[in-house]
Amino acid sequence: MQRTLTTETIEKVGQRVLLEGWVERVRTHGKLVFLDLRDRKGLIQVVVNAQVSQEAFNVGTELKPEDAVGLVGIVNKRPERAINKEIKTGIVEIEAKEMKILSKAKTLPFDMTKKELKLELPTLFDHRSLTLKHPKQQEIFKVQEAIADAFREAAKKLDCTEIFIPTIAASATEGGAEVFRVNYYGFPAYLTQSPQLYKQIMAGVFERVYTIAHAYRAEPSVTTRHLTETVQMDCEIAFINSFDELLDALEFVGAYVISEAVKKYADAILSFAKELPLVPDQIPRLKMREAQEIIFKRTGRDVRSEKDLAPEDEKEIWLWAREEKKSDFVTVTHYPTKKRSFYTAPDPENPEYSLSYDLIFKGVEILSGSQRINDYDELVKEIKERGLNPADFSLYLQAFEYGMPPEGGFSFGLERITMKLLDLANVREASLFPRDMERVDERLSVIQEKQQRKEK
Amino acid sequence: MQRTLTTETIEKVGQRVLLEGWVERVRTHGKLVFLDLRDRKGLIQVVVNAQVSQEAFNVGTELKPEDAVGLVGIVNKRPERAINKEIKTGIVEIEAKEMKILSKAKTLPFDMTKKELKLELPTLFDHRSLTLKHPKQQEIFKVQEAIADAFREAAKKLDCTEIFIPTIAASATEGGAEVFRVNYYGFPAYLTQSPQLYKQIMAGVFERVYTIAHAYRAEPSVTTRHLTETVQMDCEIAFINSFDELLDALEFVGAYVISEAVKKYADAILSFAKELPLVPDQIPRLKMREAQEIIFKRTGRDVRSEKDLAPEDEKEIWLWAREEKKSDFVTVTHYPTKKRSFYTAPDPENPEYSLSYDLIFKGVEILSGSQRINDYDELVKEIKERGLNPADFSLYLQAFEYGMPPEGGFSFGLERITMKLLDLANVREASLFPRDMERVDERLSVIQEKQQRKEK
Repeated sequence: MQRTLTTETIEKVGQRVLLEGWVERVRTHGKLVFLDLRDRKGLIQVVVNAQVSQEAFNVGTELKPEDAVGLVGIVNKRPERAINKEIKTGIVEIEAKEMKILSKAKTLPFDMTKKELKLELPTLFDHRSLTLKHPKQQEIFKVQEAIADAFREAAKKLDCTEIFIPTIAASATEGGAEVFRVNYYGFPAYLTQSPQLYKQIMAGVFERVYTIAHAYRAEPSVTTRHLTETVQMDCEIAFINSFDELLDALEFVGAYVISEAVKKYADAILSFAKELPLVPDQIPRLKMREAQEIIFKRTGRDVRSEKDLAPEDEKEIWLWAREEKKSDFVTVTHYPTKKRSFYTAPDPENPEYSLSYDLIFKGVEILSGSQRINDYDELVKEIKERGLNPADFSLYLQAFEYGMPPEGGFSFGLERITMKLLDLANVREASLFPRDMERVDERLSVIQEKQQRKEK
Repeated sequence: MQRTLTTETIEKVGQRVLLEGWVERVRTHGKLVFLDLRDRKGLIQVVVNAQVSQEAFNVGTELKPEDAVGLVGIVNKRPERAINKEIKTGIVEIEAKEMKILSKAKTLPFDMTKKELKLELPTLFDHRSLTLKHPKQQEIFKVQEAIADAFREAAKKLDCTEIFIPTIAASATEGGAEVFRVNYYGFPAYLTQSPQLYKQIMAGVFERVYTIAHAYRAEPSVTTRHLTETVQMDCEIAFINSFDELLDALEFVGAYVISEAVKKYADAILSFAKELPLVPDQIPRLKMREAQEIIFKRTGRDVRSEKDLAPEDEKEIWLWAREEKKSDFVTVTHYPTKKRSFYTAPDPENPEYSLSYDLIFKGVEILSGSQRINDYDELVKEIKERGLNPADFSLYLQAFEYGMPPEGGFSFGLERITMKLLDLANVREASLFPRDMERVDERLSVIQEKQQRKEK
């Protein structure tokens, strides 16, 4: 017998169907067991009546939340007064004829049946294989899937080719100490801090490329918006004829990604965030110095000589964009050259500032990028000035020896966008299996205890 | 002025256009320079006539292969006898009015203008940032992109949810010594040998999931079909009611991926392989023991008591499938349980053999998978029997404590499929930046020399 999904039952009134899923709620009333069965499409109510099948009823009384079950039953229309408008299958219920437990769940450590799963983060992640089953947790990652799909669609509209690039590299992408070291057959190697260098090489091949890649940052700090392993969505575009072309491209992708996710999951988004994001026809653009000027005027806080925007500045300039431009996005450009990575092109009109940009969404930077230095000699000079060794960047530099056109690109943080779109308090909630200074699936302290036990 | 792409010129006869791209070939005849300009869409011939523009001509005489150039010119129809049917833009040519070098290339270390780039593999990869620019190299990765796109489409047709999972883990996925170690804030961690454990956890959440993930194998061997870092395309499907459902699913995805790539890139594929692959309506299925029987009958080579198929056996059973079933695919099932990973479900009818499968395509395994053990106690027992420690699999095992339905899945190697579809001799050719025991972008021996120089 072919399986029927919960939402397909409304087309099968009167028919005998096979349903499979997990027990979300179960309660017994005398000779009746009522159970809410959850599958990947939704929920359905099942009635197990001892007078219909004593065997099924016996199984029904044993059921516990999260048991995986299979059952055969008849789809019945509910009487008008019993219709449940909260679920898609609310006009029907199933009268169980046969029932089988496919896999027992042990007693849950907390209640999973409430609309919100209100757990402290350590508990959420200590029980990750269970907590992800909660419908609201699932929604986070359905929205995340929609974001990634929309990113790929937008990149294709820009005529980018998808590339698959490695994460083990012989040198640190951006230089610096915040890298994870890998023992590569006895050689020191590193996990890439970003797909940056490879996507630039590939812009010299396909002109326009995109990739969804893992990036690793061994930052020795714990914040609500950093993970040690993240998913980046990157584009790189060659043969640009103006800085504005890059801004147009990144704003197109940013707005497209958010708009598409909203189109697919408006209800889910509204169950997390108070309102849907404001996506304007034209995202406001400010130079960093202009943004600082506005912040000073609005708040009296004088940040006009700071070399970067602090988190509270990003929040304030977003509030300005919302209030003045009806936009939850704002593009900030021209950060100080020395604050950005070595490959960032200085502004020819004022080399102290760079042709760089961040896209701020709801108060947080979700994208970063720049026009790049595409001249070999200039690039080598910049690498040396940052105290890095050109010999560590041989393959990358090779691309600039063979005709690298003017180019630039940008990079979205997938978890960051998910976090902001859903107003999550912590980026960890936007990662299926977050890694940070304290956790790799399990808490590092627990892993340490296990090791010590082994050594004894 | 807006850029025009090479292939757009045929719609713009008589118009003034801006073209940008790389110099593929250049030759001077007296007061004329002829150049083939390459952009992401193709090639076009440009004529730089000193009598039209002395300035452009002067630039033209300086040009070398792989220089990035920008030029303004008039699109002229070619006379009938001068039409070049080999390229899409062969009915037009550009009369240059202005020309500018955007980025100079240094002298190429080898000829890039031949149809085939016949280089030894070390040379191919030592100059990777250059060699990828060769049109036939580009084609490999356009086909690869089509394979990945088709995989995602097929997974969506199976109603799978895309998941993003980590690559740093606290324990080795499959056990064993062939893992790369990462220093994780002083703790030992590992690069995942596959997305296996996480996709199984997620099958307990979304029922059907897919991911394109990186997988790392520190195998201490160099073969033509192994890389240390690969891209895997994985599906996992829960609530299966028979082993055949899994076979149906994997064969659907395998056939879809190849068929779609052929639809998009038949010409490119035929420029590598002698013929297009045979994709039958029903892929033949054999148990491993049946395959061995056939091999014995066909060749007299008695492999009937071997515990696995050797590469030459995979090749022979493919030849059988081609000759007898008009299929370049063959699904082989029921490998010995002890030869497969701990999570593989034994066949209840004969537990010595497992509910496992490989998909063989043109003589090489491009996919592997199985139905899984979904019972917690059985899984723990199996982990212990393999000499592994259940405590190292806490989060994974947690998923089986909370109602894991019968499930299974499969995993394609992206580089392997690309290699076989294009009849490449070595899997490295199907990786943009291949990693192996001897290379991480540069040869490890070169990296070692650099280090030694630094230490002096």
